[in-house]
Amino acid sequence: MKQKDNQTVYFKNKPRIIGNYSIVGPKEGHGRLSKFFHLILDDDLFGEKTYEKAECKMLEHCIGNAIDDAKLQVDDVDVILSGDLLNQTISSNFAARCFNTSFIGLYGACSTMAESLALGACLVNAGYFNNVVCGTASHFSSAERQYRFPLELGNQRPPSSQWTVTGSGACVVSSSGKGPKVTAATFGKVIDFGVKDVNDMGSAMAPAAAHTISSHLKNTNTKPEDYDLIVTGDLGKMGGEILLDLLEREGIKLGSNYCDCGQMMYTFNQDVCMGGSGAGCSASVLNSLIINGLKRGEFKKVLFVATGALLSTTSTFQGESIPCIAHAVVLEAE
Amino acid sequence: MKQKDNQTVYFKNKPRIIGNYSIVGPKEGHGRLSKFFHLILDDDLFGEKTYEKAECKMLEHCIGNAIDDAKLQVDDVDVILSGDLLNQTISSNFAARCFNTSFIGLYGACSTMAESLALGACLVNAGYFNNVVCGTASHFSSAERQYRFPLELGNQRPPSSQWTVTGSGACVVSSSGKGPKVTAATFGKVIDFGVKDVNDMGSAMAPAAAHTISSHLKNTNTKPEDYDLIVTGDLGKMGGEILLDLLEREGIKLGSNYCDCGQMMYTFNQDVCMGGSGAGCSASVLNSLIINGLKRGEFKKVLFVATGALLSTTSTFQGESIPCIAHAVVLEAE
Repeated sequence: MKQKDNQTVYFKNKPRIIGNYSIVGPKEGHGRLSKFFHLILDDDLFGEKTYEKAECKMLEHCIGNAIDDAKLQVDDVDVILSGDLLNQTISSNFAARCFNTSFIGLYGACSTMAESLALGACLVNAGYFNNVVCGTASHFSSAERQYRFPLELGNQRPPSSQWTVTGSGACVVSSSGKGPKVTAATFGKVIDFGVKDVNDMGSAMAPAAAHTISSHLKNTNTKPEDYDLIVTGDLGKMGGEILLDLLEREGIKLGSNYCDCGQMMYTFNQDVCMGGSGAGCSASVLNSLIINGLKRGEFKKVLFVATGALLSTTSTFQGESIPCIAHAVVLEAE
Repeated sequence: MKQKDNQTVYFKNKPRIIGNYSIVGPKEGHGRLSKFFHLILDDDLFGEKTYEKAECKMLEHCIGNAIDDAKLQVDDVDVILSGDLLNQTISSNFAARCFNTSFIGLYGACSTMAESLALGACLVNAGYFNNVVCGTASHFSSAERQYRFPLELGNQRPPSSQWTVTGSGACVVSSSGKGPKVTAATFGKVIDFGVKDVNDMGSAMAPAAAHTISSHLKNTNTKPEDYDLIVTGDLGKMGGEILLDLLEREGIKLGSNYCDCGQMMYTFNQDVCMGGSGAGCSASVLNSLIINGLKRGEFKKVLFVATGALLSTTSTFQGESIPCIAHAVVLEAE
């Protein structure tokens, strides 16, 4: 698909991330990144009666705590931008109900953290709003029973599959204050290479990530080595390797500065096949390890690229392939 | 819920609507507004094998024809903003796959036309993009079988219910060219008055519409009579009456300039209970009657308020009430 330079937008007023918060479930709390998250749940129901309500509560807590972290009151927040994987994005809708702010509902599947952050930065940079909250969530058990099989079935998972992360993350993007700057974003195109295997999302999403990263580097006239970190959302092990291959064909070589949130989330012996996935995967990692690393100056410049597989069970049953998207956001230390 | 003046944004650069297109199904083609639509389908499958694919095709055609109407090429379009009612918004995702442009996926249920138009105007007015396409679609048969009952069941409908419109609409918002101007938008809050009856969406959504209209008038210091038309999306007969009541309690009296797309769509004998609903309801009316009326100078200033019920079958099964939202956009003739 042809690249266009009008995919990238620049934020000259440098909106800041002045507050952030992350929550993960028990399994993620035993993973490789456990020390970075703000809250690790003991109970993946989070005191609720259903997994869907637990997912919503995680997002609500992340939004509330990100606002606290920014030292703001809810009344200072102008708008919440959020979406999630559940049908009709109910986690986001019901979480937004708890806050006296405007709401802009999104659907970008697992790309939602990048989509909300990119759009939020657009709105703040242009002066429409002073403080916006961007976030998303996912839950292994709500995703599994909506997209795949009843949990009680204990279904076997094919080796190419990924494990939906129980987690959430949110951040406050503001026109003033201190924190990492959002300096540019590249909005992705819907890319479909014809992959139909719903147990192999990494392979389906890799071409979208490759297209967005390649367009972004071209448009911004930057090279991979200009970033301390180029981090994809949840391509997993196989998807990540396909991404590297696809980019190498275009003469773009990602080095040791490349990583994938889905690959980093779990340890080798956690039986998650290709790694983590879900909107909460990149959201929880961005709003802990990455933003805190930028705050402490451990990273100077990060390219955050979250990918989403835009299918539904209906589209799959009707024989369709999996259209995918990736949005990229540039974050820089103060 | 407390009103805040930071819900409203203003577009000083006055982005223009330079192209628009609408499609409706056969039933809507026999309704009261038939002469306004660009295309009326003879066959609600639109030559496709499933209703979901037909819904996607309507949206794809509306996007393509709106671009044609704007006398642009697809390559001139920077981004498509769209969402729909289907799980994971597949109509929008698969429609966007056909165009070589960036894509921003939304979920606002039946408020999507206003949400996409408001956000699109934000992005164009701020200078990020020159040409964006905003649109959405819905289909009676895909909505009915996803949200309610198998179509084969021929289920009876309660008197408070509404009929999902088979229809779609899209428009091109541009930084230059000729056409109606988008001058302001008010992003709504999620409002939940505790209505749990999924067969009475009008009553559930009316408080959200009232809150957004009231906030908008206050923030912009305008009165209802400043608008030739204040048009809600799909409150239907009962929802529309509740809206008038709620606003009257706040001292706001909507007069004969108030109308509702859902109330206007069908004739009395079409057996649709309270009227039309669905994201395609307000989208098809906006992109035909309203925008063309503004083009011809029949309307000078219109307040377009689309409402959405942000529930899912899962939230209903889990005993939740129906959170709702309304976004408002001001359109002015050249």
